[in-house]
Amino acid sequence: MPTLYDNPLSRNGYKVRLLASHLGLPLHVVTKDLKAGESRQPDFLAKNTAGKVPVLELEDGTCLPESNAIVLYMAEGTPLLPTAPLERAQVLRWMFFEQSQILPNIGLARMLKITGRDTQRPDVYAQRLEVAQDSLAALERHFGSHDWAALGRFTAADIVLYAYASVAEEAGIDTSPYPSMVAWRKRVEALPAHVKPDWGFAA
Amino acid sequence: MPTLYDNPLSRNGYKVRLLASHLGLPLHVVTKDLKAGESRQPDFLAKNTAGKVPVLELEDGTCLPESNAIVLYMAEGTPLLPTAPLERAQVLRWMFFEQSQILPNIGLARMLKITGRDTQRPDVYAQRLEVAQDSLAALERHFGSHDWAALGRFTAADIVLYAYASVAEEAGIDTSPYPSMVAWRKRVEALPAHVKPDWGFAA
Repeated sequence: MPTLYDNPLSRNGYKVRLLASHLGLPLHVVTKDLKAGESRQPDFLAKNTAGKVPVLELEDGTCLPESNAIVLYMAEGTPLLPTAPLERAQVLRWMFFEQSQILPNIGLARMLKITGRDTQRPDVYAQRLEVAQDSLAALERHFGSHDWAALGRFTAADIVLYAYASVAEEAGIDTSPYPSMVAWRKRVEALPAHVKPDWGFAA
Repeated sequence: MPTLYDNPLSRNGYKVRLLASHLGLPLHVVTKDLKAGESRQPDFLAKNTAGKVPVLELEDGTCLPESNAIVLYMAEGTPLLPTAPLERAQVLRWMFFEQSQILPNIGLARMLKITGRDTQRPDVYAQRLEVAQDSLAALERHFGSHDWAALGRFTAADIVLYAYASVAEEAGIDTSPYPSMVAWRKRVEALPAHVKPDWGFAA
């Protein structure tokens, strides 16, 4: 069984666990204590030189960092990742949008907010919120006329977008201007294999 | 021939043009004036609801946004993108790292610097530099023992990483702490098909 190095606060790790639930794939989850610097120690830097969770370690010891790369690897050959080039490109398009627009802005704003540093670095917080809101507006335009991120059905793109779009409120964002985005989140949550962000960690 | 909507300042667009040069693929490049808001007008939002360049428009009118998704689509079936799942995952790993770590931080810091807004929003600028430097340190650790991003050879991962790693100095970053990263950039630049960022635009 593959090992996932992860932390309950990481929504990047949640992507991998949410996908595993949808695919019925077993994972051994190992918690890395980020505050204690466990992801920056030499043994972990050898698994991921960027010093971040999640990392998927395969049974042969191969280590695969980056949540969306792990998701693509695990989803290959399943209905969540199409093989036709243009269909695949439409899924990838949203996965890259998520990494450059949603994650760094909602993710950092949320981190500042939950650690209380939003008031210490107000200009940094405000600027991340600005870009996050612009990105949520793009999702709102899309979900205004589409039920799912790509191809008219639930795919790997919805899984990765959901991970941070679902914590917009934790980042301090009022989501009432984005009703179509909120409705899409509810569609994701209504799927039978949906699990919550703490799923997969030992009690 | 496909049309690439692009702007000379965009290093995301440069990725697509650099790849096209390596693959010998013809592209019709159309400049979008971002300052004039051309990427936020309804006709362009219909091509990319996120309102950003680059967008690749195929001959049948299909529009594909997101530079790294375009790169993956164009590189499919070429030596720049392996087909073996684990090899592919190693390439994708760096492509996602680039989107979440390199692009938003070097990219925004550079934009603030070249528009003179780094002194107006010093805290925002400093925080982006912090993360950018952490990401460059990860590249430095990697290139300290690897000639290329993945698989021991030049791939699509090097193309996308190069686009923003090559403008670290324009963002105001001293790259002397990252000599292995700088040496890798020189290897990329020494390849026969390498082109400069303004390549592909009409004179």
